[in-house]
Amino acid sequence: MPAPLTGLIPACHTPMDAQGGLALDRVDDQAALLREVGIRAVFIGGTTGECASLGLDERMALAERWCATAGGSMQVVVHVGDNSLPEAVKLAAHAREVGASAVSAVAPNYFKPATALDLVDFCVPIAAEADPLPFYYYDIPGMTGVRIAMSDFLRQARFRIPTLRGLKYSNDDLLELQECIRLEGGAFDVFFGSDECLLAGLCLGIRGAVGSTYNFAAPLYQRLTRAFEARDLIAARELQGRSIDLIKTLRKHGFLAASKAVMGMLGVDCGPVRAPLRSLSLDERVAIYEAIAPLDAFPRPLERPR
Amino acid sequence: MPAPLTGLIPACHTPMDAQGGLALDRVDDQAALLREVGIRAVFIGGTTGECASLGLDERMALAERWCATAGGSMQVVVHVGDNSLPEAVKLAAHAREVGASAVSAVAPNYFKPATALDLVDFCVPIAAEADPLPFYYYDIPGMTGVRIAMSDFLRQARFRIPTLRGLKYSNDDLLELQECIRLEGGAFDVFFGSDECLLAGLCLGIRGAVGSTYNFAAPLYQRLTRAFEARDLIAARELQGRSIDLIKTLRKHGFLAASKAVMGMLGVDCGPVRAPLRSLSLDERVAIYEAIAPLDAFPRPLERPR
Amino acid sequence: MPAPLTGLIPACHTPMDAQGGLALDRVDDQAALLREVGIRAVFIGGTTGECASLGLDERMALAERWCATAGGSMQVVVHVGDNSLPEAVKLAAHAREVGASAVSAVAPNYFKPATALDLVDFCVPIAAEADPLPFYYYDIPGMTGVRIAMSDFLRQARFRIPTLRGLKYSNDDLLELQECIRLEGGAFDVFFGSDECLLAGLCLGIRGAVGSTYNFAAPLYQRLTRAFEARDLIAARELQGRSIDLIKTLRKHGFLAASKAVMGMLGVDCGPVRAPLRSLSLDERVAIYEAIAPLDAFPRPLERPR
Amino acid sequence: MPAPLTGLIPACHTPMDAQGGLALDRVDDQAALLREVGIRAVFIGGTTGECASLGLDERMALAERWCATAGGSMQVVVHVGDNSLPEAVKLAAHAREVGASAVSAVAPNYFKPATALDLVDFCVPIAAEADPLPFYYYDIPGMTGVRIAMSDFLRQARFRIPTLRGLKYSNDDLLELQECIRLEGGAFDVFFGSDECLLAGLCLGIRGAVGSTYNFAAPLYQRLTRAFEARDLIAARELQGRSIDLIKTLRKHGFLAASKAVMGMLGVDCGPVRAPLRSLSLDERVAIYEAIAPLDAFPRPLERPR
Repeated sequence: MPAPLTGLIPACHTPMDAQGGLALDRVDDQAALLREVGIRAVFIGGTTGECASLGLDERMALAERWCATAGGSMQVVVHVGDNSLPEAVKLAAHAREVGASAVSAVAPNYFKPATALDLVDFCVPIAAEADPLPFYYYDIPGMTGVRIAMSDFLRQARFRIPTLRGLKYSNDDLLELQECIRLEGGAFDVFFGSDECLLAGLCLGIRGAVGSTYNFAAPLYQRLTRAFEARDLIAARELQGRSIDLIKTLRKHGFLAASKAVMGMLGVDCGPVRAPLRSLSLDERVAIYEAIAPLDAFPRPLERPR
Repeated sequence: MPAPLTGLIPACHTPMDAQGGLALDRVDDQAALLREVGIRAVFIGGTTGECASLGLDERMALAERWCATAGGSMQVVVHVGDNSLPEAVKLAAHAREVGASAVSAVAPNYFKPATALDLVDFCVPIAAEADPLPFYYYDIPGMTGVRIAMSDFLRQARFRIPTLRGLKYSNDDLLELQECIRLEGGAFDVFFGSDECLLAGLCLGIRGAVGSTYNFAAPLYQRLTRAFEARDLIAARELQGRSIDLIKTLRKHGFLAASKAVMGMLGVDCGPVRAPLRSLSLDERVAIYEAIAPLDAFPRPLERPR
Repeated sequence: MPAPLTGLIPACHTPMDAQGGLALDRVDDQAALLREVGIRAVFIGGTTGECASLGLDERMALAERWCATAGGSMQVVVHVGDNSLPEAVKLAAHAREVGASAVSAVAPNYFKPATALDLVDFCVPIAAEADPLPFYYYDIPGMTGVRIAMSDFLRQARFRIPTLRGLKYSNDDLLELQECIRLEGGAFDVFFGSDECLLAGLCLGIRGAVGSTYNFAAPLYQRLTRAFEARDLIAARELQGRSIDLIKTLRKHGFLAASKAVMGMLGVDCGPVRAPLRSLSLDERVAIYEAIAPLDAFPRPLERPR
Repeated sequence: MPAPLTGLIPACHTPMDAQGGLALDRVDDQAALLREVGIRAVFIGGTTGECASLGLDERMALAERWCATAGGSMQVVVHVGDNSLPEAVKLAAHAREVGASAVSAVAPNYFKPATALDLVDFCVPIAAEADPLPFYYYDIPGMTGVRIAMSDFLRQARFRIPTLRGLKYSNDDLLELQECIRLEGGAFDVFFGSDECLLAGLCLGIRGAVGSTYNFAAPLYQRLTRAFEARDLIAARELQGRSIDLIKTLRKHGFLAASKAVMGMLGVDCGPVRAPLRSLSLDERVAIYEAIAPLDAFPRPLERPR
């Protein structure tokens, strides 16, 4: 099994061209940017990666490219969740074949599992197909509407999914976060998905964090992490405050489209978002630039959109 | 263009085998049952058809089979909605090629359109690819969480989608239903998706109805429609009451799994449902049989499950 | 017991003065307007009456005034629901003492009953205090967030509340509406609370309707009812369409404040709404006037706001 | 103005007798228990105090008793929020008159403020009536359904409410919590309402915490606070874990009824809860006792219910 995942794990954007097709050569630029700041693992084809807007072939091509480009230097966690269980199983098999480090799957959200047991039943064949890769369930009720207590899921899943290693936890319920962290003496990796609350997560004992803003603002969070480790909470809160300034600006303009725009300001053109999301005008991108440039959060100087 | 759609339009189940794969030869049995009761149009690959749980290839194979089997005698409306716009466009092209009578698409529901305009933008390329087939938007906020006033959608879409013919309306908001029915002097076909409220829909002026229970209980609704047309509301209410008894029984056991079980009791084995839905035990199917057999709603005698 | 309630039952506004206090002398004007159009029963101190924004003394004074003013010519149903059970019981006792025709109570909505049984337990002492007055439960989940199947409630309440006579049903779930109407062979009065769907309600068998717009647009709904009874659905739908035009206009400006403004246009000054609702500017009231004046729905010519 | 509020602030139960009336003499026992563990401030008549289930007179009597009993040794924050603005104003005046240290008000939740401005408008007269007492807005969207960004509220309210001192923040949105903490350089007191996440709150910089379990398990949280201050996060997490064990047990049985039962196990009989909440059977109380007795969280040995 690969080394455990820890630290900051960017949830990578899926690069697109002006016509809305994939622009996979940009993956090299994404990986280069992340290597510059010392990132050791990525989560691809998730929410930030617009998974639901991609076709099966596109998702496979994306996974293959990331593993080829970055597999030597980073762990590549491939998101394989899908509303269709057979499609998710195909994605899991493919991820294993192309050399992914781990797989993760979100709950189906058109038809929704009614109980933790239903959810486990849905995950079992996906994880089995990816075996021996570690499996992480991806909990994001704000997107899926599936609200199942993750401690119940882990308790039931651990006997049925031998490769179960933990969770990507994108959920405001911090009681359950703590339950999952301490379950079975800390047997599971819980990756926190709230970039704006990283400091709280570190305090509660998360092992790592998966998020969008780690793509372009990792230096900010690395300083935050060091401040936390030095128990300098005053500094850590100030840095988290800057992360919140960044995130509120992005949310105001449509988070995913705005965060792709920031990638462009760093010289990594990830292109537009796909419908039903709405891409940004030049004016909007300039407004974002103006708002975030002063934050001193980025690994490279931001380029003004034009 | 094909003749307008009217009357009862079953939303057909997707037949599966014991291993969970498609059992397309059962489509012939489904079509035969519907022909027996005079059905003239079907809606395939929708919510009842477990669209979200199927892969692209499966959805295409299903559409092809229905058009081949029933295209001569029935209009076949193919649901082509998908979270991925390119996939939906592929399904639309395929539906046109295999001889569908019309296409319909649901809103994407992982990433959700924020406005009526976003939703129109999502539908335009789908409808364009299916042109000259009529396009019906499929509104089902209880499944998608997308709550956009349909009268706003129709007002904006009519200038952008030349093939827009109307809606499949599976929504409790009857104010908007009425708005859509009377818009532009009744320019749009509004198909009502609440089998349990068909009588109310008829009273308000719907042109047809798309629903699950029309697969196996069309005679009940045909009698209801005749009673309504004869303005015998006492009889119509009594028949609608029987429909409610049927629907409440099915809901209690998980609606889709239960309605597939009823198909089996009519000799049309549509198999199990796919995860994350949960299939029924023999005991549950027997309980359904016992509850619904007395309703005198079915085109054939029900067979007791065994 | 008083005669059964039937037909159109206005949910009356609570008249206020410019300082936000009650202006009870206006009740006479309200009653006079309703008598002009043949109204035989009113529902006071409900949602339209801003019940939640009133104090206990105000609610009692309002009930007393209505019974004194209108009790001879109309049935007065007094809403006595409250988050505090002892307060609701006091209101029930008072309603009985001042000569109300019936009482009604909404669910508590800060602490919410978890089951139908909890809700019955809450209603029992209220109804008992008002005995022998008929008791109507008031179901309005859009305001309370309490979603309990009303057929379950009626089935359990009928053995515990001897004075239970039915429901005020302000709920989009028309399956449950039908269940309640046909329960025990039609033992319960179900008053429908969706003015914009009155036609559907009539078709399904409601005995009466309680609503805001019956205060100022009863003639429209009386024509609708006559058209329905003559089975002229074309005419009935056209009239319901006009009701929808009216209601959409009011909703656009804040429904309660706008409907109080319409009362003013009929010469019945009900004053402003109380915070947290927001009262309307003159411009807004003029815009409403312009939009609704052409609808031919009102018992008196509308006066332009100035 | 009184000294700033800090530290653990129990949200006190309202003691009732077997008939469901107030049992105000038990306030002395509550205050004595809290004094034993060094509590310096209480929050009365809030959600834990079943505010919505009480009448105006009861709320006034409760405030008067607490101020008389504990006013010399503790700060008494009186919750005066109500759906009826005039009633809330009366409660505010009364709280000032009987010697409260501060007042707090929740949003109205039957009619809901639509914007931050509407909410400010609702709070202004309440705070003005209590002047010079400090005013704390009480944000608890899980109960009220009112979801207004608290940083927006504070930004608008600070110019309109001179006595605005901060928030009681019972909300899972920790981004907004951080925004409120850092607003205007930390001008506002933000009291955190999630006992189960106290550790996260401390890490993010809260000045105090208001909660139910501080009534009966203050020693646990005092140890947690000391561990946090010593930067011993391992110990702090372990203690927070015990708090979670406690809270999950109480939630399983109905949180408020269960937490009143725990008060009884400490010799402070707060009686039953009022409908629509459901009181506990002896068996349920024994089950709670068995589950929580081992937690070593309480200021006195627990007595087994009998």
